[in-house]
Amino acid sequence: MSHNTFGHLFRVTTWGESHGPALGCVVDGCPPGIALTAEMIQVFLDKRRPGNGKFVTQRQEPDAVRILSGVFEDARSNGQRTTGTPISLMIENTDQRSKDYSEIAQAFRPGHADYAYFAKYGVRDYRGGGRSSARETAARVAAGAVARLIIPGVTVRAALVQIGPHKIDRSNWDWAQTEQNPYWSPDAAIVPVWEEHLEKIRKAGSSTGAVVEVEATGVPAGWGAPLYAKLDAELAAALMSINAAKGVEIGDGFDSAALTGEDNADTMRMGDDGQPVFQSNHAGGILGGISSGQPIVARVAFKPTSSILIPRETVNEAGEEIELRTKGRHDPCVGIRGVPVVEAMTACVLADAFLRHRGQTGREHFPLGASA
Amino acid sequence: MSHNTFGHLFRVTTWGESHGPALGCVVDGCPPGIALTAEMIQVFLDKRRPGNGKFVTQRQEPDAVRILSGVFEDARSNGQRTTGTPISLMIENTDQRSKDYSEIAQAFRPGHADYAYFAKYGVRDYRGGGRSSARETAARVAAGAVARLIIPGVTVRAALVQIGPHKIDRSNWDWAQTEQNPYWSPDAAIVPVWEEHLEKIRKAGSSTGAVVEVEATGVPAGWGAPLYAKLDAELAAALMSINAAKGVEIGDGFDSAALTGEDNADTMRMGDDGQPVFQSNHAGGILGGISSGQPIVARVAFKPTSSILIPRETVNEAGEEIELRTKGRHDPCVGIRGVPVVEAMTACVLADAFLRHRGQTGREHFPLGASA
Amino acid sequence: MSHNTFGHLFRVTTWGESHGPALGCVVDGCPPGIALTAEMIQVFLDKRRPGNGKFVTQRQEPDAVRILSGVFEDARSNGQRTTGTPISLMIENTDQRSKDYSEIAQAFRPGHADYAYFAKYGVRDYRGGGRSSARETAARVAAGAVARLIIPGVTVRAALVQIGPHKIDRSNWDWAQTEQNPYWSPDAAIVPVWEEHLEKIRKAGSSTGAVVEVEATGVPAGWGAPLYAKLDAELAAALMSINAAKGVEIGDGFDSAALTGEDNADTMRMGDDGQPVFQSNHAGGILGGISSGQPIVARVAFKPTSSILIPRETVNEAGEEIELRTKGRHDPCVGIRGVPVVEAMTACVLADAFLRHRGQTGREHFPLGASA
Amino acid sequence: MSHNTFGHLFRVTTWGESHGPALGCVVDGCPPGIALTAEMIQVFLDKRRPGNGKFVTQRQEPDAVRILSGVFEDARSNGQRTTGTPISLMIENTDQRSKDYSEIAQAFRPGHADYAYFAKYGVRDYRGGGRSSARETAARVAAGAVARLIIPGVTVRAALVQIGPHKIDRSNWDWAQTEQNPYWSPDAAIVPVWEEHLEKIRKAGSSTGAVVEVEATGVPAGWGAPLYAKLDAELAAALMSINAAKGVEIGDGFDSAALTGEDNADTMRMGDDGQPVFQSNHAGGILGGISSGQPIVARVAFKPTSSILIPRETVNEAGEEIELRTKGRHDPCVGIRGVPVVEAMTACVLADAFLRHRGQTGREHFPLGASA
Repeated sequence: MSHNTFGHLFRVTTWGESHGPALGCVVDGCPPGIALTAEMIQVFLDKRRPGNGKFVTQRQEPDAVRILSGVFEDARSNGQRTTGTPISLMIENTDQRSKDYSEIAQAFRPGHADYAYFAKYGVRDYRGGGRSSARETAARVAAGAVARLIIPGVTVRAALVQIGPHKIDRSNWDWAQTEQNPYWSPDAAIVPVWEEHLEKIRKAGSSTGAVVEVEATGVPAGWGAPLYAKLDAELAAALMSINAAKGVEIGDGFDSAALTGEDNADTMRMGDDGQPVFQSNHAGGILGGISSGQPIVARVAFKPTSSILIPRETVNEAGEEIELRTKGRHDPCVGIRGVPVVEAMTACVLADAFLRHRGQTGREHFPLGASA
Repeated sequence: MSHNTFGHLFRVTTWGESHGPALGCVVDGCPPGIALTAEMIQVFLDKRRPGNGKFVTQRQEPDAVRILSGVFEDARSNGQRTTGTPISLMIENTDQRSKDYSEIAQAFRPGHADYAYFAKYGVRDYRGGGRSSARETAARVAAGAVARLIIPGVTVRAALVQIGPHKIDRSNWDWAQTEQNPYWSPDAAIVPVWEEHLEKIRKAGSSTGAVVEVEATGVPAGWGAPLYAKLDAELAAALMSINAAKGVEIGDGFDSAALTGEDNADTMRMGDDGQPVFQSNHAGGILGGISSGQPIVARVAFKPTSSILIPRETVNEAGEEIELRTKGRHDPCVGIRGVPVVEAMTACVLADAFLRHRGQTGREHFPLGASA
Repeated sequence: MSHNTFGHLFRVTTWGESHGPALGCVVDGCPPGIALTAEMIQVFLDKRRPGNGKFVTQRQEPDAVRILSGVFEDARSNGQRTTGTPISLMIENTDQRSKDYSEIAQAFRPGHADYAYFAKYGVRDYRGGGRSSARETAARVAAGAVARLIIPGVTVRAALVQIGPHKIDRSNWDWAQTEQNPYWSPDAAIVPVWEEHLEKIRKAGSSTGAVVEVEATGVPAGWGAPLYAKLDAELAAALMSINAAKGVEIGDGFDSAALTGEDNADTMRMGDDGQPVFQSNHAGGILGGISSGQPIVARVAFKPTSSILIPRETVNEAGEEIELRTKGRHDPCVGIRGVPVVEAMTACVLADAFLRHRGQTGREHFPLGASA
Repeated sequence: MSHNTFGHLFRVTTWGESHGPALGCVVDGCPPGIALTAEMIQVFLDKRRPGNGKFVTQRQEPDAVRILSGVFEDARSNGQRTTGTPISLMIENTDQRSKDYSEIAQAFRPGHADYAYFAKYGVRDYRGGGRSSARETAARVAAGAVARLIIPGVTVRAALVQIGPHKIDRSNWDWAQTEQNPYWSPDAAIVPVWEEHLEKIRKAGSSTGAVVEVEATGVPAGWGAPLYAKLDAELAAALMSINAAKGVEIGDGFDSAALTGEDNADTMRMGDDGQPVFQSNHAGGILGGISSGQPIVARVAFKPTSSILIPRETVNEAGEEIELRTKGRHDPCVGIRGVPVVEAMTACVLADAFLRHRGQTGREHFPLGASA
């Protein structure tokens, strides 16, 4: 609805502005009895945190998360565990330099949500983008850390596969590499290319777009609820809701438009365990909106941030035509920090799909040989 | 949700299988007092109806819609009008040749929802794809016809911009052309190319993918509800929920990943009416999840249908490895019929966003010079 | 929501007016593999059907339900079974005497929804009350029949415990009696008293209120989701949404206001099976919004119908003061037909609570000795 | 769903346990531009705060609310105003004496949610009742303070009309009195009777039930959305979700069961303003689930709290039969503190109904003489 909530049985409500006292989320519907500490969430927030490299915003905050509700520990509980009640997570904003933003108080950055928020609400917290700031994604990442615990057999991980015009060489794909460079690149060879590109962008006071790819392995066949809660439809909504996202595709995505039916169809053979095995994954793990048992694969396109030092023509609230350059601390490539956010949203969608699937059918899925 | 429902204040619930007695939808939340007859819906269903050309399925049905509730006419009502209560729409299935499908009763078409439905439910109506059939989109189109009436200043129209590897020349774009050829192509020059491609595909018993582009003009600034009911997130979900959709992008979409911030930002000047005018539309009419007042532009990638005559390796419910060719009547290019469905889903998303926006703010939007 | 939908994982959308061509519902989220035929639903509709006695409306219709989707039968399915897809149920209106209602086309029956619908929508289908007619409850009863199949260990049954000022003697309670008289009375002794009262009411062209009590046995401890999807909160909404309902209470209800804590608390002892046994049921089977394992007990107060032959002062759409008597066929006591409707709504609430509980926790409940 | 959220366009998510670090809520969907400060919320929290008299719990906390998001103030905003984004409210728990509760860590208070939470979740925060504590209602009261600002023409106020067996004399009703005694009694004469009763209850270590009545004036005709979002159905859910509530009735409620149709119907005449005037209000301001323009009247029955000093038979998690008396600070009559909570929930339901009504119809309501 008005909606700062997503999900159904596993549902997350986020709140907070870039320069308010804090931001956070309420994670509702988490099953009981799951071990959960702030540290288990913090590790993902640290991944997302700006300041890890010179190509992300220089804003420096610890982003320390506090768990305000929904967990309990006593002598018998074997550590702190979820209780099934809502988990309130809060991150205080400690490094707010509001004065940086005074210039844009009445001006609309071209390409930014500034103008649209004004048109909708007639008022806006312009400090750091207010509610439209990418800072809100910290709450998503915190929620995603909880979501992962609900689907322990599932691994969700993302990588950057394109910065500006430079795409990785997929034959070099090595997940281990994503931890070895500040760009989450799975292709070590592209790193110097990206570095050079980003340095050029940074010096020009410009910004660049990027593409993130996410993969979820270990998802059994059967999750997702046709027709309007299809797993791919929910993924599309979740990923498109991330700041600066402009496109989402599943499996072969837009490339599948150029394929023939025989090339696109993932043929099946029987595996050693008596269950079907797919021989390719054009579908990206989703058929008819339901997981097929193959890895789920999606990509998200991020536009370049609109907060740049290069002056651009725009107008202000007084209706004056002006030139605007956005000072302050900004990511030349928001897509880099999008990587843990894409992972988090994917984990949330899967956790929610799992709980609803279990609710409706009472089981994981029907293997060959079984029937309802 | 289990969810055969989409939307919030304007919400649509669809039901029905390809070879059941009927299919339909319940449209809830339509404002009262709107003139609505079956004929006003039928015109859109006729656009979508198969059998219009040789490259869509040969299934021939009138797809005649009946309005079962939610409208009323008496001496004072100036024709039949909506009453604010749920509008039940039903389309009977009259041309069901169930015997065509007996072969696939126990086999899984590779690339089709067959296997995923089995894994989820342990049972499926395999006749014509059952619930996963594109026939369900008739209900979407019917709902979309109602949605259009709620947003009378908005024009929603779509075109096919790619079949297989063949993309239109955008410099030829002419909306009038879309009504002049059976492919909804806005580029007259590509029509013979597509015809030749489709003929080749049809003769080979194959199928091909496609890309549909939709544009909504007349949407004022301010619709959409951040952060998880962003207009682009809701569009992404709605469009990705269409059968065979594998990708959705807004504005420049995936191309924006390659852009710089200064090239991507849509600069603004003041128009003659004292309101801002954008000088480009890379954003596709949506900023921060809220409409900007520019035309909303989205694209959807459709994969080639998996029901093809070319034999493919697969397995059956008994766990046997088989070769399967799908007989029966199938579209070589489902994307063609996707055009009116993409329009319908876009109209539904916009109608719902409009009603919620009006609910929260009590007005259309805040022009420059106004404030909350 | 606009909302003609209730429920979450098990959700029902109803549609239809009293004098339209048909009415019905879409039942979404039903688990797959459940045997379901029209006959299994019809038996509950026949219970609700008017015309069973002289104290319910004389409208005579078969109320024959058709299943339009969501079930499938083939050689292997062991009868017709649910497939997990939406179940569309339709009942055609065959006995519509619209001319009966011409007099109230522009007048507002005092105590009726007429005026409120006009004020909200500015238009209304006045024939037979249109959407506000108790005829809509047929769709609820049909949905309730499906809901019962989802919770096979649970028995939901209701009885009439008061008509006008005449309450049953609870010491005479015998469930078997409810099938032996046309009023669903569990107390045989009150039947002649009610008959005399109703005869007097009928002759006077008046109507009378009533109270229905429902009991659900076999509900395990643990269903219900605090804090705003509490089982009692959802029951209260579901029961209060029935036409003419004016009050809902759980367990001792309003009487509990007069109790002391020691008298109200249901003390516990250990049962032979090693699980707790309650020694009373003041709580009506719900503690903190969660089922306790005891029978769930609720009562609903129904006001007397406002459609009566006795003339009453009112106004019309033209703003004229008039006297109105409602001709046509009306129940002198709508509470009688409320009995199967109360059962149906209770079954729907329980089915939905069960599916969500199973979704969140993955199990029925935690017995003593287990832990999360 | 799992649901610690209520409402649709105006929606509230609460979180927090009695003895966690804090509790709070996220209020989403509040229209922009509304003046809102912490002080405006605090006044309602102070009304609810325990420690105002000797018959409410002795727990002493300031219950100071902080606004963490959703408001903004700058030189042009004329004070702090809502921005349309989610409003996060937090109240820190400062007076937690966890040791008081050690005895009940493994025992189930009879009549309390203890056992049901255990059965559902297999784990519970037993300190002060954890999530089931009435302390959570502070978050509701805070949300209600925001809700009131959305419907400025509406006055929502509640009173206590019964404690134990002692009901007020309605002919003494004087709203001004509710502020003159610690029980919110509108009848000054009953105050000494209640005092004596409560003193007796307190000395006995017992507790007592109560009934609260709420009235909302200034609600125009037309709010509420049939059939499953009826205003009375939503009120019933909201009020029944309050801790210890066991019954809800609208207007004459259960008494209407004893009435005849002619006595129950609220007749109408024309008022001086050319609009209908009702001559009585048996309906409690709601007809067919839609507001009629009359005052909305509802009552809630509260059971006596189960936390009492009188020993009661129960069992513990080890399956042992024990006697339990609940030490600690408890209200002998939770209904007293229920008064501001009932007001808050009513305000939230009305604010949400208003926004949705405005969304669907685009206007307040249709007066006589207008039409859709």
